[in-house]
Amino acid sequence: MNKKAIALMAACAFLLSACQSDEPETKETESVGEETETTSQLSGDYYSAIITDGTYKTSLNRGVTLGLNSTVNLKAFETGLMELSQEHFSPDSYYFQEGQYITTETTNNWLNRVSEDNPDGLNPEDNGKVEPDERNPIYLNSLLEQDYMVQTDDGFKLGGISIGLAMNSVDYYKKVQFGAESETKISQDKLVEEGKKMADKIVQHLRETEGVGDIPIVVGIFEQSTKDNLAGGVYITQAQSDDGSTSLTDWETINQKKVIFPTSGESNELSSFENFKAEIESFFPNLSGVTAEALYTDDQIMNMKVSINTQFYGESEIIAFTQHVSEKASSYLLPNIPIEITIKSINGTEAFLAREAGETQFYTHVFD
Amino acid sequence: MNKKAIALMAACAFLLSACQSDEPETKETESVGEETETTSQLSGDYYSAIITDGTYKTSLNRGVTLGLNSTVNLKAFETGLMELSQEHFSPDSYYFQEGQYITTETTNNWLNRVSEDNPDGLNPEDNGKVEPDERNPIYLNSLLEQDYMVQTDDGFKLGGISIGLAMNSVDYYKKVQFGAESETKISQDKLVEEGKKMADKIVQHLRETEGVGDIPIVVGIFEQSTKDNLAGGVYITQAQSDDGSTSLTDWETINQKKVIFPTSGESNELSSFENFKAEIESFFPNLSGVTAEALYTDDQIMNMKVSINTQFYGESEIIAFTQHVSEKASSYLLPNIPIEITIKSINGTEAFLAREAGETQFYTHVFD
Repeated sequence: MNKKAIALMAACAFLLSACQSDEPETKETESVGEETETTSQLSGDYYSAIITDGTYKTSLNRGVTLGLNSTVNLKAFETGLMELSQEHFSPDSYYFQEGQYITTETTNNWLNRVSEDNPDGLNPEDNGKVEPDERNPIYLNSLLEQDYMVQTDDGFKLGGISIGLAMNSVDYYKKVQFGAESETKISQDKLVEEGKKMADKIVQHLRETEGVGDIPIVVGIFEQSTKDNLAGGVYITQAQSDDGSTSLTDWETINQKKVIFPTSGESNELSSFENFKAEIESFFPNLSGVTAEALYTDDQIMNMKVSINTQFYGESEIIAFTQHVSEKASSYLLPNIPIEITIKSINGTEAFLAREAGETQFYTHVFD
Repeated sequence: MNKKAIALMAACAFLLSACQSDEPETKETESVGEETETTSQLSGDYYSAIITDGTYKTSLNRGVTLGLNSTVNLKAFETGLMELSQEHFSPDSYYFQEGQYITTETTNNWLNRVSEDNPDGLNPEDNGKVEPDERNPIYLNSLLEQDYMVQTDDGFKLGGISIGLAMNSVDYYKKVQFGAESETKISQDKLVEEGKKMADKIVQHLRETEGVGDIPIVVGIFEQSTKDNLAGGVYITQAQSDDGSTSLTDWETINQKKVIFPTSGESNELSSFENFKAEIESFFPNLSGVTAEALYTDDQIMNMKVSINTQFYGESEIIAFTQHVSEKASSYLLPNIPIEITIKSINGTEAFLAREAGETQFYTHVFD
């Protein structure tokens, strides 16, 4: 994947979250005894999902991603794999279905340490050590399967599979039961190396699974962010297995990072954000927090998500504040990138604003 | 106010909450030593608010509306008064400012019972009784002042005042300290009668307040909903005092009500909602609640706010579910009225959809 494609992908991906829906479009296909329909696409960047008998088919290993460090990691892990998949399986011709080939049992075996009782474990054996630098850490934290379906005259059939591997950059563990939490740090080189070995084993398993055959399998390695990080992780490398191959060879690096403003951030974007923040903070005496998460691809800023937390005493304040934020965001924040702004109080989300790439105005909604 | 005007007002009012912002428009006026600007209007239906030296001026009695029965009442009380004010003070030529003429002290005196120590109390004296039907209930729960400003060559000056009186339909009280909560029910006729008497006293007070002079004063009587009601209250009657008059005479009834589906609701709208609900509920096995609040004016449905609460196991589910909701809402919910749909999980707002009157498509946003 060349750099332009990555940048384009990242830019598109963000658009997923803020878009006017296309004309709803439902395709129905009959197969024996059950009725299959698909959800409408919210935009060309989202996949339509397959609905069978009015019900959404959840993955066989549903819930496994809840084991990630944070909700932002969970969301980044799942939507990141969809975004990455778009390059291989176009939303125009592929439909989304949650993973139907890797069971909970297989997932649990893989995520556990390898041992006599668990020969399939992908994480290393317990070497009996408890010191951070002496023990074998857990590299693989979670695993995600997404199926990409194509429509035929006989209904939907599997057209591709994407696998996400969520790797730990920090493995949190306890030296003794109920003890304090300790950490083993894992370098990015090491987690990529381990992830690639695991990916080969997973592809081999899938090739032997009934129904998979020689369809393309995409694997993305995701580095999850640490527990104290407000930003979610990113996918750092990916490869595709074609023609029934049982290993992955052409791994391509994805140069992405997520940055939290104002604690870090590049000079140009940071100063734009700080001006915005200062204008916002003078509005009320009691504004408690203005932060932003920005995604960079190849050192280019791709989008920004701003969170404003505050204490409100009334609805008039919220409306006036939202108007003020809309105006100051237009004046101070970077033009030409998609921006999402959420205003929260103790009661939850009070208002949100969103602007897509190429637009000058913010869509604004006050929850009243 | 004739019926058409009320209906139009209610329809417009809802638009406030979901709108593409107009081109930001900031007007600056210099007065001695301080810089006054205004927020941009989010739409023609919102007022621009006045900002002085970059700071929003909160009301003198800030926080008093927090004493209402619920957050939905607080929001309905404040936005309801803005909506009602639009008929008297056009957002095209008036600017919004929180109340600067009624102090916290005056407000507290008014809200307390009348007594020797508190001759200004608007609530009745304590007659010493504790039984629900024997005691004098607290009629007036909260009071809201909104100032509507006009721009002159010398800066902004007061052009009108709106006063909201939040009346109890149920007065919650305790017979003994730390005891169980008891309730005195108050009929609508009674609370309107009491509210009108209070309104006259408030207008008299304002006419004697420096700076008010003979500008128009609008008073709206709001019947707050009970604690167990998911819907907020509504304004039920209003009057305007002109030319410095110290009493209000031409009270006009506002025929509005808020209805929660599916627990109540008119037959036609209810069956449309129930079809929608059934389609949504089959999507997942674990959907925990689909409800809606609808506003009726003169027995015509004006808008609908749908709340969907559910347990999610992953982001893919949220995206697919939002697509599904968008499609089913277009098919099943009433056309031609504004609709807002919020999808929440334990993590907060996961997605929201909104459609304005006259549109066929929903604006959709998934928070990822």
